[in-house]
Amino acid sequence: MADRPLRELGWKTPLEAAGKPVLDQIAKTGICGIIDPIAPGVPAGSDAATLAMLGYEPVKFYSGRGALEAVGSGVTVLPSDVGFRCNFATVNEALVVLDRRAGRIDNKDAAKLAASLQQVRLPKSFNAEFLFKNTVQHRAALVLRGPKLSPAISDSDPETDGKKVLQVKPLDKSPEAKRTARIVNTLMHEFRMVLKEHPVNRERAKKGLPQANMILCRGAGTVPKIVPLHEQFGIKPACVAAVSLIKGVCKVAGMNLVYVKGATGTPQTDYAAKAKAAVHALKTHDFVFLHVKATDVASHDGDVKLKIEVIEKIDRMLGYVVDHVDVDSTFLAVTADHTTSAATRNHEGDPVPVAIAGPYVRRDDVAEYGERTCARGGLNRIRGVDLMPTLMSYVGKAKKFGA
Amino acid sequence: MADRPLRELGWKTPLEAAGKPVLDQIAKTGICGIIDPIAPGVPAGSDAATLAMLGYEPVKFYSGRGALEAVGSGVTVLPSDVGFRCNFATVNEALVVLDRRAGRIDNKDAAKLAASLQQVRLPKSFNAEFLFKNTVQHRAALVLRGPKLSPAISDSDPETDGKKVLQVKPLDKSPEAKRTARIVNTLMHEFRMVLKEHPVNRERAKKGLPQANMILCRGAGTVPKIVPLHEQFGIKPACVAAVSLIKGVCKVAGMNLVYVKGATGTPQTDYAAKAKAAVHALKTHDFVFLHVKATDVASHDGDVKLKIEVIEKIDRMLGYVVDHVDVDSTFLAVTADHTTSAATRNHEGDPVPVAIAGPYVRRDDVAEYGERTCARGGLNRIRGVDLMPTLMSYVGKAKKFGA
Repeated sequence: MADRPLRELGWKTPLEAAGKPVLDQIAKTGICGIIDPIAPGVPAGSDAATLAMLGYEPVKFYSGRGALEAVGSGVTVLPSDVGFRCNFATVNEALVVLDRRAGRIDNKDAAKLAASLQQVRLPKSFNAEFLFKNTVQHRAALVLRGPKLSPAISDSDPETDGKKVLQVKPLDKSPEAKRTARIVNTLMHEFRMVLKEHPVNRERAKKGLPQANMILCRGAGTVPKIVPLHEQFGIKPACVAAVSLIKGVCKVAGMNLVYVKGATGTPQTDYAAKAKAAVHALKTHDFVFLHVKATDVASHDGDVKLKIEVIEKIDRMLGYVVDHVDVDSTFLAVTADHTTSAATRNHEGDPVPVAIAGPYVRRDDVAEYGERTCARGGLNRIRGVDLMPTLMSYVGKAKKFGA
Repeated sequence: MADRPLRELGWKTPLEAAGKPVLDQIAKTGICGIIDPIAPGVPAGSDAATLAMLGYEPVKFYSGRGALEAVGSGVTVLPSDVGFRCNFATVNEALVVLDRRAGRIDNKDAAKLAASLQQVRLPKSFNAEFLFKNTVQHRAALVLRGPKLSPAISDSDPETDGKKVLQVKPLDKSPEAKRTARIVNTLMHEFRMVLKEHPVNRERAKKGLPQANMILCRGAGTVPKIVPLHEQFGIKPACVAAVSLIKGVCKVAGMNLVYVKGATGTPQTDYAAKAKAAVHALKTHDFVFLHVKATDVASHDGDVKLKIEVIEKIDRMLGYVVDHVDVDSTFLAVTADHTTSAATRNHEGDPVPVAIAGPYVRRDDVAEYGERTCARGGLNRIRGVDLMPTLMSYVGKAKKFGA
């Protein structure tokens, strides 16, 4: 949601340009500030930032994206497994990436392709097996299972269109890393063979759609070893989110994942359904994390107009929440997990705004929710990892340090 | 540059009292804040603060002043060497320091004395050699080389006039520290013998100048083991600075040192030449660090009038920079490496102001560059070590944490 001032908006940010009466009301009645998800100037990935904002020191606990994505997609990931985030992508014969998201392939086509990929057999000598599962659109998860695997390997995803698919390489000198890289390279080659000739792709070609003829993998990782939130703070937490990565982080943190029909992780997600689900979850949980991916999607696509529309939809979504919870006994914190610039289309290191409304907060004089207005608020500038203790202190669940 | 409010300025700081239209314009168009070079309340040394502001955690990487000063003066310092910052000083027969800077001796006299000192021979049994080099005015660098040396030794410099020169003592119980202390004490004694009878000093006595008849050493240290900036951020950095200590930090960080004729590290430095050199360096580098020592010199001498003059000269210097770079593609950050109070004449723990101007920064409503105005800016309060990631994020060179 957070951004930088944009020339086309008269040097306003999308958040500053959007009509957002509910967000402004939350800022007005609450205490505001800015948050460095990881640390000042450090562009945050969604996974590390969400981990931090749930109270886990990211530098200590973050152990790669892949396993989190897999957990979130419903795959069981064992402590010894190595997980990967994958993309269905479009490549040419020379393996140059034409579209890292295969035209944001729909879930139905992706599911068919994934089912075929799961049939691939690795050579017995590898002594390893795998699970492959598509999640939302072009996104998928891969889990490697077997003895002596290591997450210390590079990505095959070149991260930009127009570049060649990369060979996966060991990042340290361990035999485990070498072995894991060899397995992944073999698997990617086998996947390519299956996808290249797949009927779904022939069908897509006929329709003029980009073929999903390659799998790109990145973010090899293991499941972080963290104490779940209910043990940490004595709360019963739930998560309303659509994208696997966020669901993975929340599940690892011990939160109940609430399934919401129509929640897609896209700008077309059912905002109202998510709001209803969050309000409903609050009846049986005392902490609900409601996540919307769509602002980030719009930013990565450089679509300023869409980003503003999404912010306005989020605002209406929050309107439902505010109208349906007991504001005398409920705290509401609104923030973003990172800044994504619609100009650079990348995650950037600028801090994000936060507003916390609820009983007894030290209300300040910030009257609008935005990157710059919140910077003048009473919370000043905190780190992602500070947010959860701040909230837990409001609800009387923070642990005293000292006597 | 940063200071505290002074009674004689009607409780303004020198920066607040100075005419500084360019600095104010940078503050006005940019985002402002305050920086704790090391941590809140910790008075920072120039070396540790500069190291921090280049992105290196000072508590982890700072390893003493001496080796940095030596590197900056052009002496090769090996990983096993111990370096010292030295002063030419004036002492009486009882070794009481009369002037820690020998009347800020000129470079010519200092060079002659240094050449004689380099002739001193240490006893063979010490199994150690040394390099001694004068830098600017009373400043000099000493490097000890040999097996089993330790930087864990105390200073001979009492740090104030009127006190006796100190015996150097080991700071831990290692044989290395004991041995190093013995070598330094011997060397200081031999130096004293040479200086006492030196023709240059006889000449100075005739002219009524303080004799440089003693070497004071302090800040025993080794070269910090840090990853250079080009590896860390993929940038090509340059440094425009005159004093050895700052040049040493920059060289260790892998920056190209730009030689500027007339840059002296004194209030009489050629500000215009430094500005030109910085603008010129920006044509072949993508990060240029422009350092002026003179405000600190004026503060240590308690010369408020001079400090204000120097700030006004810095302002004109920055005017040249602003007029000669492409402001649509260049970021400009102005800050200080520490607060030096013209009243206490010491480095103090107060934060320093910062303003960053450039494309897409979240411009705030600070309209004047100063210690107190910047404290209300959009950056709020960050640490020295946060500055470099913040700048690298603006130029798209920051590494994402997480995925």
